[in-house]
Amino acid sequence: MNNISICLSPALYPFYAEKDTTVIVVDIFRATTSICAAFYNGARSVKTVATIEEAKQQKSAGYLVAAERNVKRCDFADFGNSPFDFTPEKVKNQDLIFTTTNGTQAVEMALEADEILIGAFSNIQSLCSYCLSANKNILIICSGWNNRVCIEDTLFAANLTEKLLKTKKFEYKSDAVKMALEIWNIAKKDLKTYICTTEHYERLKNNELENSVDYCLTENTTPLIPKYDKITKTFLITDKIYENK
Amino acid sequence: MNNISICLSPALYPFYAEKDTTVIVVDIFRATTSICAAFYNGARSVKTVATIEEAKQQKSAGYLVAAERNVKRCDFADFGNSPFDFTPEKVKNQDLIFTTTNGTQAVEMALEADEILIGAFSNIQSLCSYCLSANKNILIICSGWNNRVCIEDTLFAANLTEKLLKTKKFEYKSDAVKMALEIWNIAKKDLKTYICTTEHYERLKNNELENSVDYCLTENTTPLIPKYDKITKTFLITDKIYENK
Repeated sequence: MNNISICLSPALYPFYAEKDTTVIVVDIFRATTSICAAFYNGARSVKTVATIEEAKQQKSAGYLVAAERNVKRCDFADFGNSPFDFTPEKVKNQDLIFTTTNGTQAVEMALEADEILIGAFSNIQSLCSYCLSANKNILIICSGWNNRVCIEDTLFAANLTEKLLKTKKFEYKSDAVKMALEIWNIAKKDLKTYICTTEHYERLKNNELENSVDYCLTENTTPLIPKYDKITKTFLITDKIYENK
Repeated sequence: MNNISICLSPALYPFYAEKDTTVIVVDIFRATTSICAAFYNGARSVKTVATIEEAKQQKSAGYLVAAERNVKRCDFADFGNSPFDFTPEKVKNQDLIFTTTNGTQAVEMALEADEILIGAFSNIQSLCSYCLSANKNILIICSGWNNRVCIEDTLFAANLTEKLLKTKKFEYKSDAVKMALEIWNIAKKDLKTYICTTEHYERLKNNELENSVDYCLTENTTPLIPKYDKITKTFLITDKIYENK
């Protein structure tokens, strides 16, 4: 029986990190949803960087750059953090650079992990299939907001946990997972309405960026799994396509 | 309107810390419950220290020492971490030293805060009265377990939040508070049964230490509020007695 754990903030990762674990990084609004969308629309690779300076250097080196701070697109960047920015015309066969307020910071925290995947509602069932065949312990890292916990990432983590528990190949022991499942059980009855009461929805709405919320909450629009490749230090999609139904 | 916030792990404190805020540290099982019990039974002061070495030094200097690691009493100590250890015969007019796995670490994190109080179910209504008269923003720090989040501290935080919200003098904005309140709404119907499904209850039970659980979950057995005194660097009870009904 493999274990599932949930880390509610990137800053807590050191206290949850264990060897031989598949780490799944999630930032529903919107970095990890956007990375999945970019791959779905043909991007070849995604490199995450922590700072604006690194992103600018990569831009000077000729890469297309997605850069966001505090929900807004950075002036110098080719893309913001909306999944709709990454159209096939713009991203097909391109190597992209990403830096965002939360999601890419969470990736940086986990770089030493055994394997790192990018999770979103859009690839949740494929992740579930991946985890079943990988047959390892799972740790889901919620990106949160400036290291504070957030509901949308917690709900994704609980949704994936629920799917994995149903396979009877996984179990959980931690209070964090129990807490997340409790909230998911309330929210899942009407996810969109529930999300509209959260901090980050408010933040998106105040910046007129709530148009992508429905997409960010929709399950299984892409069967692709971005996985960190330690040789190229970029995310690439897995060779195998994992069932997303 | 003052704000209430909840920090689910001491390691997240830097991301929630704000000026002019009353910080309430909670470690239901069992450091903060025990500190309240010690004061109720006549202790004069409590000094928290982070390490076993400091606790041993204080013991050599003649102080009575409570020391616990991984739920067990340290051999050299006068007390473990059970509230029943601090009987009037032992603690009356004494200055005590405390070091525990989680609660005293949480205090150490918050030492720069404007004011720090010790919270437990045993003094929850008095804390509520204090917060009403202090008229400041509130941040409740859950001690958790080795910086992982835990349910019992989260439930205390939500219970106090619910009481404060009812006064209509407080509000909250953060997802962490919303999450805590959701879980409290489920758990409060039968708190003891709910707690029996959590990580730390299991840990106490495995060490035959669950005898104090009922006491740790009982509200308003003491009207005292331990508050950090920046001059003596110890916790003292507030001069004023705050209504606990």
